[in-house]
Amino acid sequence: MSPTAPIRDVATLLEALPYIREFHGKTVVIKYGGAAMVDPALREEFARDVVLMKYVGINPIVVHGGGPDITAYMDRLGLPVEFVSGLRVSDADTVEIAKMVLVGKVNKDIVLRLGRHGQPAVGLCGDDGMLFRAARKAAPNGEDIGFVGSIERVDTDVLTHIAQDYIPVIASVGADRDGNSYNINADEAAGAVARALGAYKVMFLTDVRGWLRDPADQDSVINEVTADEVERQLPEIAGGMRPKLAACIEAIHGGVSSAVIVDGRVPHSLLLELFTDAGLGTMVKPAI
Amino acid sequence: MSPTAPIRDVATLLEALPYIREFHGKTVVIKYGGAAMVDPALREEFARDVVLMKYVGINPIVVHGGGPDITAYMDRLGLPVEFVSGLRVSDADTVEIAKMVLVGKVNKDIVLRLGRHGQPAVGLCGDDGMLFRAARKAAPNGEDIGFVGSIERVDTDVLTHIAQDYIPVIASVGADRDGNSYNINADEAAGAVARALGAYKVMFLTDVRGWLRDPADQDSVINEVTADEVERQLPEIAGGMRPKLAACIEAIHGGVSSAVIVDGRVPHSLLLELFTDAGLGTMVKPAI
Amino acid sequence: MSPTAPIRDVATLLEALPYIREFHGKTVVIKYGGAAMVDPALREEFARDVVLMKYVGINPIVVHGGGPDITAYMDRLGLPVEFVSGLRVSDADTVEIAKMVLVGKVNKDIVLRLGRHGQPAVGLCGDDGMLFRAARKAAPNGEDIGFVGSIERVDTDVLTHIAQDYIPVIASVGADRDGNSYNINADEAAGAVARALGAYKVMFLTDVRGWLRDPADQDSVINEVTADEVERQLPEIAGGMRPKLAACIEAIHGGVSSAVIVDGRVPHSLLLELFTDAGLGTMVKPAI
Amino acid sequence: MSPTAPIRDVATLLEALPYIREFHGKTVVIKYGGAAMVDPALREEFARDVVLMKYVGINPIVVHGGGPDITAYMDRLGLPVEFVSGLRVSDADTVEIAKMVLVGKVNKDIVLRLGRHGQPAVGLCGDDGMLFRAARKAAPNGEDIGFVGSIERVDTDVLTHIAQDYIPVIASVGADRDGNSYNINADEAAGAVARALGAYKVMFLTDVRGWLRDPADQDSVINEVTADEVERQLPEIAGGMRPKLAACIEAIHGGVSSAVIVDGRVPHSLLLELFTDAGLGTMVKPAI
Amino acid sequence: MSPTAPIRDVATLLEALPYIREFHGKTVVIKYGGAAMVDPALREEFARDVVLMKYVGINPIVVHGGGPDITAYMDRLGLPVEFVSGLRVSDADTVEIAKMVLVGKVNKDIVLRLGRHGQPAVGLCGDDGMLFRAARKAAPNGEDIGFVGSIERVDTDVLTHIAQDYIPVIASVGADRDGNSYNINADEAAGAVARALGAYKVMFLTDVRGWLRDPADQDSVINEVTADEVERQLPEIAGGMRPKLAACIEAIHGGVSSAVIVDGRVPHSLLLELFTDAGLGTMVKPAI
Amino acid sequence: MSPTAPIRDVATLLEALPYIREFHGKTVVIKYGGAAMVDPALREEFARDVVLMKYVGINPIVVHGGGPDITAYMDRLGLPVEFVSGLRVSDADTVEIAKMVLVGKVNKDIVLRLGRHGQPAVGLCGDDGMLFRAARKAAPNGEDIGFVGSIERVDTDVLTHIAQDYIPVIASVGADRDGNSYNINADEAAGAVARALGAYKVMFLTDVRGWLRDPADQDSVINEVTADEVERQLPEIAGGMRPKLAACIEAIHGGVSSAVIVDGRVPHSLLLELFTDAGLGTMVKPAI
Repeated sequence: MSPTAPIRDVATLLEALPYIREFHGKTVVIKYGGAAMVDPALREEFARDVVLMKYVGINPIVVHGGGPDITAYMDRLGLPVEFVSGLRVSDADTVEIAKMVLVGKVNKDIVLRLGRHGQPAVGLCGDDGMLFRAARKAAPNGEDIGFVGSIERVDTDVLTHIAQDYIPVIASVGADRDGNSYNINADEAAGAVARALGAYKVMFLTDVRGWLRDPADQDSVINEVTADEVERQLPEIAGGMRPKLAACIEAIHGGVSSAVIVDGRVPHSLLLELFTDAGLGTMVKPAI
Repeated sequence: MSPTAPIRDVATLLEALPYIREFHGKTVVIKYGGAAMVDPALREEFARDVVLMKYVGINPIVVHGGGPDITAYMDRLGLPVEFVSGLRVSDADTVEIAKMVLVGKVNKDIVLRLGRHGQPAVGLCGDDGMLFRAARKAAPNGEDIGFVGSIERVDTDVLTHIAQDYIPVIASVGADRDGNSYNINADEAAGAVARALGAYKVMFLTDVRGWLRDPADQDSVINEVTADEVERQLPEIAGGMRPKLAACIEAIHGGVSSAVIVDGRVPHSLLLELFTDAGLGTMVKPAI
Repeated sequence: MSPTAPIRDVATLLEALPYIREFHGKTVVIKYGGAAMVDPALREEFARDVVLMKYVGINPIVVHGGGPDITAYMDRLGLPVEFVSGLRVSDADTVEIAKMVLVGKVNKDIVLRLGRHGQPAVGLCGDDGMLFRAARKAAPNGEDIGFVGSIERVDTDVLTHIAQDYIPVIASVGADRDGNSYNINADEAAGAVARALGAYKVMFLTDVRGWLRDPADQDSVINEVTADEVERQLPEIAGGMRPKLAACIEAIHGGVSSAVIVDGRVPHSLLLELFTDAGLGTMVKPAI
Repeated sequence: MSPTAPIRDVATLLEALPYIREFHGKTVVIKYGGAAMVDPALREEFARDVVLMKYVGINPIVVHGGGPDITAYMDRLGLPVEFVSGLRVSDADTVEIAKMVLVGKVNKDIVLRLGRHGQPAVGLCGDDGMLFRAARKAAPNGEDIGFVGSIERVDTDVLTHIAQDYIPVIASVGADRDGNSYNINADEAAGAVARALGAYKVMFLTDVRGWLRDPADQDSVINEVTADEVERQLPEIAGGMRPKLAACIEAIHGGVSSAVIVDGRVPHSLLLELFTDAGLGTMVKPAI
Repeated sequence: MSPTAPIRDVATLLEALPYIREFHGKTVVIKYGGAAMVDPALREEFARDVVLMKYVGINPIVVHGGGPDITAYMDRLGLPVEFVSGLRVSDADTVEIAKMVLVGKVNKDIVLRLGRHGQPAVGLCGDDGMLFRAARKAAPNGEDIGFVGSIERVDTDVLTHIAQDYIPVIASVGADRDGNSYNINADEAAGAVARALGAYKVMFLTDVRGWLRDPADQDSVINEVTADEVERQLPEIAGGMRPKLAACIEAIHGGVSSAVIVDGRVPHSLLLELFTDAGLGTMVKPAI
Repeated sequence: MSPTAPIRDVATLLEALPYIREFHGKTVVIKYGGAAMVDPALREEFARDVVLMKYVGINPIVVHGGGPDITAYMDRLGLPVEFVSGLRVSDADTVEIAKMVLVGKVNKDIVLRLGRHGQPAVGLCGDDGMLFRAARKAAPNGEDIGFVGSIERVDTDVLTHIAQDYIPVIASVGADRDGNSYNINADEAAGAVARALGAYKVMFLTDVRGWLRDPADQDSVINEVTADEVERQLPEIAGGMRPKLAACIEAIHGGVSSAVIVDGRVPHSLLLELFTDAGLGTMVKPAI
């Protein structure tokens, strides 16, 4: 048989070389969520993508939430599910269930899947090695929504112990000084981890094509924007894009070189973003 | 004020010195369970005891199960709870719930409590860093009881990364090569971890006074016994003492210097066992 | 037998936990002298106390003099013993004898005693690894008192080589650039070592209850005082308390967090000071 | 624009993942020569291939000869070029010229080209760090052919110093104990280096399609063969394939897992061999 | 036999002790050239001197040119040899030949000779580990003289990898960003390497007795001079002394403690300069 | 001035090169005593010799006794001095004085002298870091001679901590398990240290020309002998040569490559032995 097809494959490999060079030895934080976490095929592709990143010398850190799974268990237990401004109203029982689902189910599913694709991972939550210290936060309208927390402090020591040989996978829950547990928005957690680690890049997987100039028009994706520009517009932004853009600002202002919002419905969107010029989604950059 | 009371305290501290010397730099695996995990006061004492062990130079590793919490959630979800020879019959849904409860609730409670007492801990389960590889096992009567596993292999690398600066806390669940999760008996897990680490000692907390010559007579505790002697008697032993004694044999035959079954209802039974001559419970030793 | 007594012992152990936590990994310099060095029982207790400190993660450094032993040998040799302002007038022969006694007898007695209590120690004097560089100093009244030296420079390298695995025990003698040996006040030496190492604490064992507001009244102990306050009063202080207080000032101004003058006649005064609230003696602190 | 093309590219990248996994952290020795060293385009492709290997975690070591360049300089200098059984008859002047050309021209060309593709390299010959100790060898017919050497000893220390951060590029010349320089066959050198390093694989680039069952029939390539089988047939093999096959035997018997003879005229034959199933050339394996 | 002669020898060894102490652990860069590189006896002495330096704890780095060897090969190839202001006019062919001679012949001769005297060495040129980045320079009169380069950047990483266990021997050629090779003046290279390494001393071997106040009078050697004084006089200096003095200024202004121009015709001039008060040649020092 | 004299000096330096090469990185234990410790000029020469050894890469360990100084102090104190078979009869008081003199005077004199010659040293005795464990031994005739000990065990850990940066200087006293101190023969101590360290060479300084075939004939020195031969003759040997020869046997049988008895009255006998072919004294070698 003619070796033409393999040659084409190898040529492709070599086209990735400049990108591999750029990211070699760099830390990349990935907020994992949405369709890429729900669709079985996308889930496997995500795991392979992250394992490949590790093998070509990148230091990937996965941060995840898991809203749908939490809601499913709330339903099985006959508990009411309520949201205020997109934040889950969380009494102590809700937080306990959310934490069990995120840490004991979603997190370990990701850890096992990465392992099956050839790279041992270690799952963590904010409690492990005191990774996150959380503090209660109110809803934007000031309403008390219970044990919903923001991150006061990230202690990256435990990541340093683990990231050399394993892929760290972080569930976005954490406790305050008194040991109360909190739901933490996973976008916020990813931004805070990227900032604390001085990551090179942070990537947010979503179920839209990026930040849309006109939310009704899927073709109005803003390809590149400065963090300052995002900050100016933030007050007018609502919905799921808001915490992502806020986390982009947080990361960029904290020294991260680029923050991208990527369409997780597209297979291999992580690798497309890192290793090709496809230019999917929205990239937030420091002001020039 | 006379310093008599503090002097007595300090004298006590010094009485522990020979024991501290003996255990300094040694690894001690602790199977945590029973009353010490349920009773709020004992829970706090347990955490303080383990933190003290870390501070005086011991390397403690905690392994835990959490049956009552699992059953409670099974009940909340209206699911049937069934045991065969003391092993929980586990379909896929049961294992998922058990894993969530152990990894996402029980484990993190322990981690947070150790942290509050001054020593950061990191929670792990068999999936993290591929710590355990499990295989399905049948009930002693040969009955299929679903996803109940035994441990085929322990990969201690992840513990080495963590145990220098943190107390590892291990939930006894694990997956097989295909990624199926299993309930694993926590006594078995503690014995296997102690053996794999070449631990100096493994301690099993129970709710009885030790291995009783006559189960009906609480005063018939066997204080010391060789592993060979236990092995001879094992076929006739039933109930919760059986997996503990089996794990003692496994550990001792694997090179661990001593395995003790300790009454966890007694406050500070860990420290009493390590740092005094009180001689609670049953100690299994290698043949002389 | 009822385990009540051991339980009380273990409870005591746990009361020390917050203190152990505070001092874990910290360097504590101890000026050893007085009754604690003369009384056989106190001598043993001192050794056990220091060994315990090492085992619970503290890095103790012992600095000692040994006046009475020197005087005894001077007497045996029929040599005159003379003091000016508390400083031993030292011709070359006197210094040679003092050095032999301190380095070859007192120091090794301490080293052996620590070893017998379970912790190997290494004895040093200012000559070893060029630990001290001394310079001749005059008596306060300007009188020439011979080879009595002050410390110009401390080279802590040799301590770094030794303190990881051994307890360093330092005899307070040293030489100048030309190789002439000097008697050095051990309080001064302890203060200088604490300062050079950036120690966390320096402790001076004495035969009084602390710094007394009224030297005639043993109950007038000043419990806590700032270094600045001590400095203001220093010109009026005479006797053995003077070099101790001067060394406290030196240490505190050099960055040591606390300096305490402790009654060495009280058994376990070191541990009482470190691990209880007994509050013996005088603590000198930085100005607030 | 549709991201279809990049997706195809990324999919290709992922197809390489199992191969990247296999070779990650492994040492691969490459005998570089023939068309791949002469043809300008192939030369660039070779450099990119080796740099990519380094970036995906492989430790590549390049060993090269350079016959045509040597002959060209011999011609410019008006010196006779003579071969016996494929070995260059080498008087002292010839060896001096060969060494200058290999070490000062061919080697540095490779080093510079790897650098331009993004990976600093360091050029070595057998003299550097006493990498090779050579001994004079006769032609197969026993004829004295001058300073043509075989390798008596490989000292890999210098490679260990360099290979962590650089790609080592080795010119196949070396000296004996008395400092006389020798031409060394580069196939032999590659085999000896692979053996001494305990390499995972050694690859020989040639200008034919592999080891041909029938030298006249380019389609008679033997795809896979054991080292023992090659050894049996070696006495009947002549020409340039002979030293390659002898080096394969040497490497495999010394513990190298596989030795392959690859067609260097095919672009990217290195990557095709490593990262696809294309199966070019001849693979020599240990006996099963 | 009487041991008088050995005693005298040993006494001599001890006279070197203060000098050995001064240079212990220090980096000394040696520009090797002239008679010491041509005369067979001086060549051996040079190698022994450098090996001795290594054995007594100095870190020697040898930098060399090799003009006469280059000219000899140019002659053998029938190529014209042309100089402008002491710089070799270098077309691409000339540079190729110069590089082959320097890297493939002269450098390896030095490497082998050091090895024979007991200390393995590693030869490098500016291409290895991207040690030098060169840029084209014009002759002082502005005339284009081809591929004659100056050093824009020294990357000392590769020296750090090698100098711990080997003596680095550097041939003064290098390439620009585009991969074009250049002749580089070896005096300039030695000065640049000394500066980049923060060397303690740089030594230039020449064939005259030093910098002569009156070039016609061999007895007019300037023994000591400041770099500023040299800089003032530099515009009037021509010939081979000019690049040496320029390199001295470059090194001293870059922080090197002393730069000496030494008569390489005197046997052991390196050791005489380092280990005795003989005071040969000219020492350039920082301004006082 | 003509540089002839320095050239001769440098030539001498180079003659030592092969010896420096042989001993580079090797441990050499030196038993220091006799005239070299008493004569002021020899004392300085000894210190310079040892410092030079350190500077040329040897790892010297000095072991010393100090009989004359002990006797002098015994006399000053009016105490009787008694010997049985060359061993000092030692009651507790005698040992205390001996220890003070050896550890506090002789040892520190050596430490200071090495420091003044440029190399910091650290003095140790058998108590430090539990270097020696001693046991009481009787005189050869079975008579009880008090606290005279032999070495049961050498713990070289403390030497490892110190010898990298300092010259260890060891006084030959030590204690038993109960803390009783003992006089230890310094020849025995040197042999035991050399054996425990796996030293390359052990050297004994004496006041005779070596082991004499005929003790009355200073010219009957045995230049070289095997340890087995010495062992055969040992029963008939008496006097100070006996413990030296016994220590040579002990060292050689324990793996030390050579043991030499050297005339310490000859200036620089250490360097003459190591760095020239002068061949002073007696060398004991393993059987061939």
